[in-house]
Amino acid sequence: MAELSQTDLDGIYAFAVKLGKDAGALLWKTAQLRMGDDAASAAEKDHVEKENAVDLVTETDENVEAFIKEQIAQKYPSHKFVGEESYSKGASRDYLIDDEPTWCVDPIDGTVNYIHLFPMFCVSVAFIYKSKPVIGVINAPFLRQFFSSCSGRGAWLNETQPLPLVRNPVPPMPENAPKGCVFSCEWGKDRRDQPDGNMHRKIESFVNMAAEIGGRDGRGGMVHGMRSLGSATLDLAYVAMGSFDIWWEGGCWEWDVAAGIAILNEAGGLITTANPPQDEATCTIEEVKLGSRLYLAIRAAGPSSTETGRQSQERTVREVWRRVRNLDYSRPGA
Amino acid sequence: MAELSQTDLDGIYAFAVKLGKDAGALLWKTAQLRMGDDAASAAEKDHVEKENAVDLVTETDENVEAFIKEQIAQKYPSHKFVGEESYSKGASRDYLIDDEPTWCVDPIDGTVNYIHLFPMFCVSVAFIYKSKPVIGVINAPFLRQFFSSCSGRGAWLNETQPLPLVRNPVPPMPENAPKGCVFSCEWGKDRRDQPDGNMHRKIESFVNMAAEIGGRDGRGGMVHGMRSLGSATLDLAYVAMGSFDIWWEGGCWEWDVAAGIAILNEAGGLITTANPPQDEATCTIEEVKLGSRLYLAIRAAGPSSTETGRQSQERTVREVWRRVRNLDYSRPGA
Repeated sequence: MAELSQTDLDGIYAFAVKLGKDAGALLWKTAQLRMGDDAASAAEKDHVEKENAVDLVTETDENVEAFIKEQIAQKYPSHKFVGEESYSKGASRDYLIDDEPTWCVDPIDGTVNYIHLFPMFCVSVAFIYKSKPVIGVINAPFLRQFFSSCSGRGAWLNETQPLPLVRNPVPPMPENAPKGCVFSCEWGKDRRDQPDGNMHRKIESFVNMAAEIGGRDGRGGMVHGMRSLGSATLDLAYVAMGSFDIWWEGGCWEWDVAAGIAILNEAGGLITTANPPQDEATCTIEEVKLGSRLYLAIRAAGPSSTETGRQSQERTVREVWRRVRNLDYSRPGA
Repeated sequence: MAELSQTDLDGIYAFAVKLGKDAGALLWKTAQLRMGDDAASAAEKDHVEKENAVDLVTETDENVEAFIKEQIAQKYPSHKFVGEESYSKGASRDYLIDDEPTWCVDPIDGTVNYIHLFPMFCVSVAFIYKSKPVIGVINAPFLRQFFSSCSGRGAWLNETQPLPLVRNPVPPMPENAPKGCVFSCEWGKDRRDQPDGNMHRKIESFVNMAAEIGGRDGRGGMVHGMRSLGSATLDLAYVAMGSFDIWWEGGCWEWDVAAGIAILNEAGGLITTANPPQDEATCTIEEVKLGSRLYLAIRAAGPSSTETGRQSQERTVREVWRRVRNLDYSRPGA
């Protein structure tokens, strides 16, 4: 395997940025057609009116992924490609990412939002090298927010605003975190009403994080706000911005998180596993496994008079672990 | 009391739009200063660094409300003014809106979001006449989304896109609603861990709406998505867009909802009470009382082959009522 230099990475980054812009424009075009854009041709309008929203979105999902895949194959024929759409059609759920240069793509993250035209949807493109996401591009065209990062080049909103947003100085995590934190979490698709199933484990964890200090048998976290956007990718982007302090989630896949992890890492965030280890108060806090389907992200944090930024992030991780349940999402090969 | 003609309303609308733009720009200025905008003066930067985020936001809240109040007093000295900030300082929580022309203003809705620089914050300006919100302006400057409406003039996103977004035709509510619906709900500030308190009533209701069909003793609603943004005003704006199908909430105040209700009404939405009446399956569905602190909003709906749009909205209201608990928020004078 050829080693990639910073110059190589910079070239791949420039290509990824262009690709994210073009793919986002494709995504946005179908959305605008559904809003009755007058610029649409008669044939386009006819097509939009004939299809239902879900079919249109499936078609867009496939078209955008095919576009991205083709652009990459032309420019970097030796690179591997893992895409949400092509993956979903296969029967296997094996984890396919190794040390080879690999693109990991979600053509529409926040699909439910896209169907309903709630602005929290995006295209997500990550470049992974030696098993680490090193380049991330997220384009949310309805929000006109474009996130990008490259290892060694910082993380950016709309290519001009460095992330995290508040940076002179970057504030430490709150002293009594999770109190004072904005906590982002998702209900997800698994809604089975089983007494100890994932939905109820999630809800129990959410309620612990929300409840007053002293409540829930001492597990109450009294977070400043509970947020659910319906997009794992944008959840991570907002942790990278510093707008969300904590994101905790189980059940999503590598294409939902790869670009977000690249951007969050470059913005100074920490990302580890959602599931509390047995020795949660003392264990080493390990970097998340990309394919683990279990994610806990903490925003960038600066030093206080008593802690380094990393110490305040790790303290927050342990305080979250103390309040959440183990989730049951398995994964072949990860 | 003088009767207001459509021409009078149009003049007030133009003023309100200008006011919303100017107030949003003020709000955005402080946010940008916190992001280390290089255009800031040394004195401004110094001020931002000295204050903590919460104090800065309180100051901005007061400044923006004072600006709006002064602009209105100059232009319409006979109009009444009800603002979140000036109201909060008084001891009374009496409902002050009557048939007189009244402005109802929230200088920052989504205050927690504004503190954390999560983009879901806005300024909200409503003009109320004969106890009904007839003009609404919502400016979310970080999102670059500006919502506006005037009775008889439609509802708009960024002044050019009519609401709801999907309108040729406007789709009916889903046949099995709330299944297929995006449901928006907020955890709010009341996090007391009391067995039958508002937090637990809300959570029980949320879980009913989320759970699989057949789950929760037949109350499972299997909604398409659960969303929490932390801004009642923007929740309503997204119902007006048609992006959210249902918003259910208790505990907010008239300045949180007045502009959103004006916009939602003009976009064809329905808004009634959050609390299920005793005869929920058969009762007349009444228009919400602005000061009731209990709100259930349904997006605009067009006819199907078997129902009018209104019928599908009312069916959805009853299906929500069947799944939610009564919330306990009282209000003197409303």
